[in-house]
Amino acid sequence: MADRLARVREHLHEVLHVDAVLITAPSDIRWASGFSGSVASLVITDRRSVLVVDSRYGDQARDQSPHCEIVVANALEARDQEIARALEGVTRVGFDDKRTSFADWRRLQSALGGELIPLADPLAPLRARKDRFEIERIEAAARAADRSFAEVAPMILGGGITERDVRDELESRMRFHSADGPAYPTIVASGPNSALPHHQPGDRTIREGDSVIIDVGALVDGYRSDMTRTLFVGEVDPLLVAFHEVLSATQRDVVNAVRDGVAAAKLDEMARTALAEYSGDILHSTGHGVGLDIHESPWLRGNSADVLREGHVVTVEPGLYRVGVGGVRIEDLVLVERPGCRILTNSPKDPSCPQSAPTT
Amino acid sequence: MADRLARVREHLHEVLHVDAVLITAPSDIRWASGFSGSVASLVITDRRSVLVVDSRYGDQARDQSPHCEIVVANALEARDQEIARALEGVTRVGFDDKRTSFADWRRLQSALGGELIPLADPLAPLRARKDRFEIERIEAAARAADRSFAEVAPMILGGGITERDVRDELESRMRFHSADGPAYPTIVASGPNSALPHHQPGDRTIREGDSVIIDVGALVDGYRSDMTRTLFVGEVDPLLVAFHEVLSATQRDVVNAVRDGVAAAKLDEMARTALAEYSGDILHSTGHGVGLDIHESPWLRGNSADVLREGHVVTVEPGLYRVGVGGVRIEDLVLVERPGCRILTNSPKDPSCPQSAPTT
Repeated sequence: MADRLARVREHLHEVLHVDAVLITAPSDIRWASGFSGSVASLVITDRRSVLVVDSRYGDQARDQSPHCEIVVANALEARDQEIARALEGVTRVGFDDKRTSFADWRRLQSALGGELIPLADPLAPLRARKDRFEIERIEAAARAADRSFAEVAPMILGGGITERDVRDELESRMRFHSADGPAYPTIVASGPNSALPHHQPGDRTIREGDSVIIDVGALVDGYRSDMTRTLFVGEVDPLLVAFHEVLSATQRDVVNAVRDGVAAAKLDEMARTALAEYSGDILHSTGHGVGLDIHESPWLRGNSADVLREGHVVTVEPGLYRVGVGGVRIEDLVLVERPGCRILTNSPKDPSCPQSAPTT
Repeated sequence: MADRLARVREHLHEVLHVDAVLITAPSDIRWASGFSGSVASLVITDRRSVLVVDSRYGDQARDQSPHCEIVVANALEARDQEIARALEGVTRVGFDDKRTSFADWRRLQSALGGELIPLADPLAPLRARKDRFEIERIEAAARAADRSFAEVAPMILGGGITERDVRDELESRMRFHSADGPAYPTIVASGPNSALPHHQPGDRTIREGDSVIIDVGALVDGYRSDMTRTLFVGEVDPLLVAFHEVLSATQRDVVNAVRDGVAAAKLDEMARTALAEYSGDILHSTGHGVGLDIHESPWLRGNSADVLREGHVVTVEPGLYRVGVGGVRIEDLVLVERPGCRILTNSPKDPSCPQSAPTT
């Protein structure tokens, strides 16, 4: 983590043009300091790294963040004073404007007695480029989800099982395969529910004629994986077959275009162009970065200014949805390498016969 | 939900002194409108209830929130414009200053062209008083955790099992007992780890001489339960025995003092006074409300201005922790009734012999 703190310092001067930064997003704090608790403030100046936690977390912080000074403060006002003390003598102080509430900002402004500089996702470009330690954990998470999916897919294709039971099977098998848990609430959306991209698994029993969207990822040491497959139980509506066909080709083509230097917005546009015939059935953007957060930089969407770089880990997940009929989504997690890229999620994509073993 | 929206309108005028409110916390939105997605904005004025969601959530919102007008907007700027349109002609508009980021606030200010009024936890007093529908779900969650604990406690007392495996057993058994999942990441902290109030379950194997803190709750239909028990595996350090003894008595006395009209700060003080001999070993406040959020109003801590009311559901969870030795915490979930209160978590508290069946 000493190395990451040094990279933050460089980034402050060269990119953000501030002398110090106040970090409040838990995953930013975990990335920069190692501390995994849910609440803390991290002040990084040229000379100091000060982690302010409450008394529940004092020992944990000392243990996980040996490169930071640990300060314990319970009341908000005491915390603000410790932050102000850590920033003494520093003039240009940036803060994370999306992860700082209006209330915290107002109190901090008055404690610091100066203008804070709003920064959008201050550590995002650093966090987006994964190191070897991080890639190993994301790979392990993707592997756990692949294995779990291979075991559960036959149960889905057999029908007669509820969405909720599929979710429970997927999540307990990921744990069996060494995950700490799911990376996010697993989505199992069957029949008409598959038209809802963020459906919560319910008591509906999967049956003949269903399209079933399975969106499943694992958590390993704080790092996440993300994958979606769509299964067809018996014969489904021809529209869904058409959806799957065009999405398979589109998803493969976009993955093949992932490489260092490509604009994220271009990949999103590529997917939309390929799916133009069904443009009214597109409900979400093409992908996003994955790491300590399930949704993080870079963003594969139309208005993105991000450019993919070696070490980025992104999803490619085009989907098509028609209310009353159903939906299809196919999603892989992809690591940008040089040259090209490597797919981390290896579950087969055939909607009717996914039992063939994953290649890893 | 029509009833809840009406109560919000009353509350706006009589308590908050605003003409409209912009709600952004997902659990506030769920409480007021029924919509359970993770991102939305809800505008409530005298005449309108407008729920602004992105295109992933359009159908879900129409389905879950029949009492609201549903507006779909994807880009942040489009969302801000829809919010501004819903607020046309309204002058005094409040917003949730803790759940609105500085960035959102700044954009909204300029879209609305007027001063927004910061409100602290605008719906907290309404949400704190649970109705029958809510209490039934919290009871079901508490029951699932009780049953799971009864099944897993003997495994813990037998030793030879890792913290992580205990966590997995507890969580999968809660699901078996009809929960949707854990209410929060289950804590299993054994031996020296029990001195860390928010320890994450790890690979440590539970053994003779350990104090094991189990902090476990279930999720049912969005509602949560919260309970902690501490088990002793064989003979433990006499300090831990003393901790358990004084905490048992203190926890029972504080629970007995829970009733409509009592100040939450007084309950916190009561616990601190009873534990004065060990004041250096207290690391957290005495309790908090539980509902759609695992931590919500009212707050049982020293600086709380909250007064307990019929229908409040709160934890009473004193704990004592000594680094290098271990810790003990005992926590129940309590419903304020008239008269008195009712304990919703019924697992036995004997640290060496908790197998006796819970009373529910």
